[in-house]
Amino acid sequence: MVNVSIITIGDELLIGQVIDTNSAWMAQELNKAGIRVKRRVAVGDVWDEIWKALDEEAVNADVILITGGLGPTADDITKPLLCKYFGGTLVTDSAALENVRYLFESIFKRPLTDRNIKQGEVPDVCTVIQNKRGTAPGMLFRKEGKVFVSMPGVPHEMQGMMTNDVIPLLITEFSPGQISHRTLLTFGIGESMLADMIQEFEETLPANIKLAYLPNSGMVRLRLTASGPDAVETEKLIDTKFAQLQELVKEFIVTNTDEPMEKVLGKLLLQKNKTLATAESCTGGYIAHLMTVMPGSSAFYNGSIVTYSNETKSSLLGVPPEVLTTEGAVSEPVVLQMVKAVLKTMDTDYGLAVSGIMGPDGGSEAKPVGTVWIAVGNVEKQIAQQFNFRFDRQRNIHFTAINALNMMRKFVLDDEGQ
Amino acid sequence: MVNVSIITIGDELLIGQVIDTNSAWMAQELNKAGIRVKRRVAVGDVWDEIWKALDEEAVNADVILITGGLGPTADDITKPLLCKYFGGTLVTDSAALENVRYLFESIFKRPLTDRNIKQGEVPDVCTVIQNKRGTAPGMLFRKEGKVFVSMPGVPHEMQGMMTNDVIPLLITEFSPGQISHRTLLTFGIGESMLADMIQEFEETLPANIKLAYLPNSGMVRLRLTASGPDAVETEKLIDTKFAQLQELVKEFIVTNTDEPMEKVLGKLLLQKNKTLATAESCTGGYIAHLMTVMPGSSAFYNGSIVTYSNETKSSLLGVPPEVLTTEGAVSEPVVLQMVKAVLKTMDTDYGLAVSGIMGPDGGSEAKPVGTVWIAVGNVEKQIAQQFNFRFDRQRNIHFTAINALNMMRKFVLDDEGQ
Repeated sequence: MVNVSIITIGDELLIGQVIDTNSAWMAQELNKAGIRVKRRVAVGDVWDEIWKALDEEAVNADVILITGGLGPTADDITKPLLCKYFGGTLVTDSAALENVRYLFESIFKRPLTDRNIKQGEVPDVCTVIQNKRGTAPGMLFRKEGKVFVSMPGVPHEMQGMMTNDVIPLLITEFSPGQISHRTLLTFGIGESMLADMIQEFEETLPANIKLAYLPNSGMVRLRLTASGPDAVETEKLIDTKFAQLQELVKEFIVTNTDEPMEKVLGKLLLQKNKTLATAESCTGGYIAHLMTVMPGSSAFYNGSIVTYSNETKSSLLGVPPEVLTTEGAVSEPVVLQMVKAVLKTMDTDYGLAVSGIMGPDGGSEAKPVGTVWIAVGNVEKQIAQQFNFRFDRQRNIHFTAINALNMMRKFVLDDEGQ
Repeated sequence: MVNVSIITIGDELLIGQVIDTNSAWMAQELNKAGIRVKRRVAVGDVWDEIWKALDEEAVNADVILITGGLGPTADDITKPLLCKYFGGTLVTDSAALENVRYLFESIFKRPLTDRNIKQGEVPDVCTVIQNKRGTAPGMLFRKEGKVFVSMPGVPHEMQGMMTNDVIPLLITEFSPGQISHRTLLTFGIGESMLADMIQEFEETLPANIKLAYLPNSGMVRLRLTASGPDAVETEKLIDTKFAQLQELVKEFIVTNTDEPMEKVLGKLLLQKNKTLATAESCTGGYIAHLMTVMPGSSAFYNGSIVTYSNETKSSLLGVPPEVLTTEGAVSEPVVLQMVKAVLKTMDTDYGLAVSGIMGPDGGSEAKPVGTVWIAVGNVEKQIAQQFNFRFDRQRNIHFTAINALNMMRKFVLDDEGQ
C-alpha cells in the first residue's frame, strides 16, 4: 500500500500566524483516491531543516508531497534547495515562463519584473507541473524509487495541481486499493456515553474496519474506515457495518453523511420545498453566513435581520421597548416576537431567532455570559428554549448557532402541517 | 536557545477530516514567550508511528509537546503508549479522578462510567497536569534531558494547560531569549511588487532580523522577526527597522498591527465614535459576522439586513422591483439604494451594501460569476464600485467582504465632516 508524507514549508506555520488548511485538503483528496497519508510535517524556511525533512520523509513514505516556499521573494528558499538536493541546475522552462508572462500581461495587467521571470526557472532534473492558477510551477522529482512533488502554498494553486496532475499520476503509478469512509453526526450525547452504547459493536469489528470518535463543538461524529484490495467487497462490508452502527445510535443521529448541521437543515428545507429566514442578535449574522455558504441556498433561505442594538430590535422586529426594559433583550418574549416578526417580514415558511450574551462582557448575576434564548417556528406555532453556554465568545456564537439550527431542524421534521 | 517540536496525534488529521488549529495556537503562544517551534508533526492513532515520532522529535528538539489521543474511547492509544515509552505503570491519580467525578456529577449531570473513571489513571512516572476544563489529565515526562508533555486534543482544554502550566514551566526552566515580531497589513499590491519596493531594505537587514511575506486573500502581511538575548535591545532594533519598513510601503498600509481588516475598521469607528450598519446580499451575513466576532462590537455596529431574495430587497430595502428587473440585482442603482435604505433603517453614521454573484451558478455572459457591486457612504454621500472576482464561492464571499470593509475604511478616513 502506497504511503504519503506531506511536508509543509513556511515560518508562518511555526509561529502560528496561519493555520495549515492545505494538509487537510490534500489528505482528504488523497484518501478519496485510496491513498494513505502516513505523516505530516511542518518546517520553517530554514535550509537544514527542509533538507532533513526530505531525508526523513523519504524513509517514511513512498511519495513526498511538499507545499510552500515557492514565492518570488527572498524568504522562499525551496526551489534552489530542491535543485541542489536532486542534483540539478536551474533552467528556464519556456511553458512556465509563458504562463507567468500571460498572467501578468493579460490578467494582473501589471509589468513583469525580474522576480516574476525567475519564477519560470526550474531544476533541469524535474518534470514540470504547469500552474494554471498562478505563477509558480510545480516540480516532480524521482530519487531512489521515491516520488517527490513540490507545489506552491497558495491553496487554490496547489489544489489545481493535485486534482489535475498529482492524484491522477499517483493512481496510475501505484494502483492503490480501496479506502472507504462512512461518517454520521450525533447531537446531544457525549463521547463516553456513545462509546458505552456501541462497545460490543466496536469490539466485534473486523480487523480492516476502524471506528473513530470525532467530537467537535458539542457534536460527535462517528467514522468507520474500511480498507481492502477489492472495491466492491470493501464497500459491501462497510455498508453493512454502517447500517448496524446507525441502528445503535439512531436516537442521536443528525445525519448519516459527513455534512455539517447547516447543510442537513438546508437539504431538509429543499426537500420539503420550504423557506427559512432568521433574526439574529448575539450571533451577529453567523447563522445567515452558515446558511448561505452553501451553493444554491437562495432556494430555501430568504435572509436575516441582524439586530445588534436594542433600537433595531424595536424598529425592525417590533419588539416593544417596554419589554426590552422589563424582560431584557435576552428573554423569552423577545425571541418569540423576533421570530414572529421575521416570519412576516421575510414571508417565509419557517423562522428562527436568537438573543444572548456572548461575552466576555455584558453578563450579570441573573443572566451570566453564555445565557441564550432561541426561538423557532412557523406562523401557527413558535417554541422558545433557554440555553446556558460557558465558553469564550467565539464558541458561544458557534454553540448558539448549531443549537438553533438543530432546534429548527427538529421543528421542520416534526411539522406535520405539510 | 530552546527548541520545541509539536506532535499532534489522530487519524482525523491524516484523512483531512479536521483542520489542525491546535498547532497554530500553541506556536503563537510559545513564540510570544520567546520559545521557538522548530517542527510540527502529525501522526495517526498507530502505535508504531507515535513511538517513532517520539524517538525522532526527541532528537530534533528539547521540548516535545503532544496533543490528542487521550479520549475515553478505544481508538485513543496514547496513554498506554506513553506509559510503556517512559517505563511506568498506570495508577489512579486521586486529584484527576476527583476532577472527573466533579465534572460528571456537578457539571454534566450524567452518570460516571468505567471509561470516565479510567481517565483518572496516569503513568506513575509522570507529573500530572490537572485539566480544569475537561476530564483527561495532562502528563509531563522527562527522559535524557528532554521534556515531554502530553495534552488532550480538545482545544480549550489544551489551551488551559498551556497557559496555566506548560508555558510558565518552560519559561522558568529554559529562560528563553527575546523573540519579537512586528507585522503590518497591506492591501492592493502583490507580493513581487512589494518585494521590489523593499529590496534594498531587505538586503541590509541585520542577521538577527528576518522579513517574511504572508500573502492571504488579496492582502499581504509583512512580518519582521528579531531575536536576541537582551529584550530591551531586541525591541529597540526591531522598532527602528519596522518604522523604516512602514515608511517604504506607507501608501498600501491598512494597519501596522497584526489585526484583520474588520478589526481595523471597528477600531476606527470606535475612535471616531461613529456607527455602522450593513446591507448584504451575496455575502449572506458574513460581513456582519466579521464585525460582531470582536468583543464590544455593539458600540459601533448596529446590525445588518441580509436580503438573499429579490422580494426582500424591495420590501426591506426599498429597491424598486422595476430596477431589479431592468438593471438586475447586481447593479449600481441597487447597491446605492441598499446603502441609503440601511443608513435610514438602522439609523447609523455609515452604511455599506454588497450585491454579487458568488457562484458556482447564477452567472451570465454579461455578469459572470464573481461580478460584485459594493456601495459605502453616509447620508450625504454614497459611492459605488464594481469588482470582478474569479474564485470559488467561499473565496468570492471573503474577497467581497474584505474589499467592502476596505472601501468603508477609506471612506471613514476621508470623511472630513467630523
